[in-house]
Amino acid sequence: MLTYNFAKAQGPLYEYIYQCIKDDIMAGNLRQGEKLPSKRAFAKNNGISTITIQNAYDQLISEGYIYTVPQKGYYVAELEGMKKVRREGSVSLHIDMPKKRPDCAADLSDNRMNPAFFPFSIWAKVLRHTISDKSGELMEASPAGGIGELRAAIAEHLKSFRGMLVDPDQIVVGAGTEYLYGLIVQLLGNEKQYCVENPGYRKIVQVYSQYHISCKYADLDEKGMTFEELRATGADIAHISPNHHFPTGITMSAGRRYEILAWANEREGRYIIEDDYDSEFRLNGKPIPTLFSMDACEKVIYMNTFSKSLTPTIRISYMVLPVHLINRFYRELSFYACTVSNFEQYTLAAFIRQGYFEKHINRMRLYYSRQRKKMIEAIKKSKLNEVCEIIENDSGLHFLIRIKTDKEDGEILHALEEKGIRVKALSEYFFTPSDKKHCFIINYSNIDIEKAEKACDIFYEMLMK
Amino acid sequence: MLTYNFAKAQGPLYEYIYQCIKDDIMAGNLRQGEKLPSKRAFAKNNGISTITIQNAYDQLISEGYIYTVPQKGYYVAELEGMKKVRREGSVSLHIDMPKKRPDCAADLSDNRMNPAFFPFSIWAKVLRHTISDKSGELMEASPAGGIGELRAAIAEHLKSFRGMLVDPDQIVVGAGTEYLYGLIVQLLGNEKQYCVENPGYRKIVQVYSQYHISCKYADLDEKGMTFEELRATGADIAHISPNHHFPTGITMSAGRRYEILAWANEREGRYIIEDDYDSEFRLNGKPIPTLFSMDACEKVIYMNTFSKSLTPTIRISYMVLPVHLINRFYRELSFYACTVSNFEQYTLAAFIRQGYFEKHINRMRLYYSRQRKKMIEAIKKSKLNEVCEIIENDSGLHFLIRIKTDKEDGEILHALEEKGIRVKALSEYFFTPSDKKHCFIINYSNIDIEKAEKACDIFYEMLMK
Repeated sequence: MLTYNFAKAQGPLYEYIYQCIKDDIMAGNLRQGEKLPSKRAFAKNNGISTITIQNAYDQLISEGYIYTVPQKGYYVAELEGMKKVRREGSVSLHIDMPKKRPDCAADLSDNRMNPAFFPFSIWAKVLRHTISDKSGELMEASPAGGIGELRAAIAEHLKSFRGMLVDPDQIVVGAGTEYLYGLIVQLLGNEKQYCVENPGYRKIVQVYSQYHISCKYADLDEKGMTFEELRATGADIAHISPNHHFPTGITMSAGRRYEILAWANEREGRYIIEDDYDSEFRLNGKPIPTLFSMDACEKVIYMNTFSKSLTPTIRISYMVLPVHLINRFYRELSFYACTVSNFEQYTLAAFIRQGYFEKHINRMRLYYSRQRKKMIEAIKKSKLNEVCEIIENDSGLHFLIRIKTDKEDGEILHALEEKGIRVKALSEYFFTPSDKKHCFIINYSNIDIEKAEKACDIFYEMLMK
Repeated sequence: MLTYNFAKAQGPLYEYIYQCIKDDIMAGNLRQGEKLPSKRAFAKNNGISTITIQNAYDQLISEGYIYTVPQKGYYVAELEGMKKVRREGSVSLHIDMPKKRPDCAADLSDNRMNPAFFPFSIWAKVLRHTISDKSGELMEASPAGGIGELRAAIAEHLKSFRGMLVDPDQIVVGAGTEYLYGLIVQLLGNEKQYCVENPGYRKIVQVYSQYHISCKYADLDEKGMTFEELRATGADIAHISPNHHFPTGITMSAGRRYEILAWANEREGRYIIEDDYDSEFRLNGKPIPTLFSMDACEKVIYMNTFSKSLTPTIRISYMVLPVHLINRFYRELSFYACTVSNFEQYTLAAFIRQGYFEKHINRMRLYYSRQRKKMIEAIKKSKLNEVCEIIENDSGLHFLIRIKTDKEDGEILHALEEKGIRVKALSEYFFTPSDKKHCFIINYSNIDIEKAEKACDIFYEMLMK
């Protein structure tokens, strides 16, 4: 008869008994096929209730440690596999989390939005109203493409801001552009060849490579990706940023746009992904019509994100699909739930509809254009100006400078980093060996201008060494 | 000389001039290489400022419609490609959005959480506090695996609720389990063979097939997936729900767990994905130790979701990775931004830490166990009881009934649907032909018991016809 020391029991008694019996089974004190005492006898013997034993036995049964034969009793189960599990060698328990980059004296490599400019109190107000006004809708499942109100607000924004006429049902909302890149691959297929701009944004290539796509690269001239280069790659999908290329800042010319559209229209299954990641902040002139608007042949997928224009800590991006592709999306991919929570979808919808998004963008454009001007003045005032040329290219949140020097880019970057100045070279954005040396990217969105002035002087001194 | 009717101008004048010239270029009235009037002459001729013309020309240049030759003037650019774009055939503009399923008299197929039970006002309160207390943190980028506070809260919950000891840094938070399935494929590779339970949850197979994985299927016996079946598939990855299988409700026995762990340990690169999607709602006894806890060899990836336990409209799931896999995650996949917004991550962290999550779960368990009891009583009271056997299997939010009948499952489902009763058959969850007929899944989480009683009578009458 099993006897355990109930004085040791902590928590429910049935759990203690369960644990004791389990331990005995694991230790081999109770062997496979051995009969356990009946509930009644066990209970009586220990002076506890039958129900307690019943609960302990039930738990052991549900975990498979014992089994019951009706009218006969309880038996220890077969637990053969248990002995086979042995850890071989030692397992490292060290987790190597990425470190935060240390602060530096002047960071010209940071092109994120300055968090101080996020309209926090307005967002909080709209969120509070959403919670009280929409308690019902917040609990209803979102369609795979996002809730109707948000898609309608985005369509309205695209119309007034980009002159784009889109049906809200063509829009798919997702948790960040990286997520949407993945959906696009699932929609268009990874057996196709994808072509990206060279130089370009490395993350696009990283995401595609996760889907076993090795991207082709097409060089740019001053009008953007050439269609001869694109054709030469043999690709069927062109992923481009025609409205403002990163990092060169090039805007694709109208003629080139028509050429690229013509290329897409030559063959079934060719598509252009128009990545319009920072169109809101283009500073000069009026925004350029999108490829999506020029396209008459259902060949362009338009993408944009609120993570760039609002804050990266809100994960909302969207894409606009040609009609036949949105139908394919709902046919093949709508088993995916929308990845953005209803709370944020409804809040953003109200934020746009009530005009706060437009106000925010206008405010930010003003700030960035002043910031840009100050940054250019800082360079012009400094000695660096003697050896550098500013390349503007209408860039939104950065511009390029070209330096007259014999030093290698790597050497320059390293020397600057040692002085606490972080900057990126254009050459770092090439996917293939390139002779585009001595161009550096000046991200001014987040920089303190006084620090920038000092950084220019240090940059100059370092070059003269 | 260009002359336009400025009376028609709406909005900025420069924009109007830009549009007029662009239209003339597109219509062929201004031809390639043609010289435009000088800014000064154009301005003087029309009685407007040179700056306005300058702005219009700048815009046309940046879009590539015209170009400038220093000291000479402005010329219409080459726009050859333009003529090549022609839409061939007609393009359908009909978007086929999925329809909402019509309401029915009794829906026993719906296993979602009843939205009325989401602790809305508490969530709203915690969210409001988060906004006011965390304005700084809310704007700081989340690590790829999720913010530390949320991961710490989840680790604490797993310890007290599941007896699991995990380092918060082993946890990866993402926007829904479907998203995490995708990350797992990217982490483990899609060249491996994946095996799922048969019958099982179809969405798992759908997600994997998006990554070009054709899943293998292993049948279950009453103790769960057998390791002989698993071995026979040749798979290296087993995706299972050992703690509560859907839809059979089977709990994998302890012995079987050790066998499956031993299988995983036989070969480098073998892993078990333990999908613990509804462990919170297991109603009887104490929760069973997870495979993750039993595993001494770093072979188990544990997954769970708050979309099931809170509301599907909040997209937060998580996985716990073995140490070497979390290191691989940060090495290879941390270029992905976390897909859950900071607002929801911090709110959920506080919601768990302040004990609200535990309270919510306890409340829901009580509700579900009552609902289950009522549902079983409803069946027992009805005539359906004469021809059906209730199969309990400790299921969380559903149980199975087996019907004595000669009719085919499809016929039964069709006849019920016509009477406004929606129910699912076990046979619908098999990936391969199966002789498991006449078992039906009773989801009681959302059902009105009065309706359920009527549904039982209709079910019986239909069977007798």
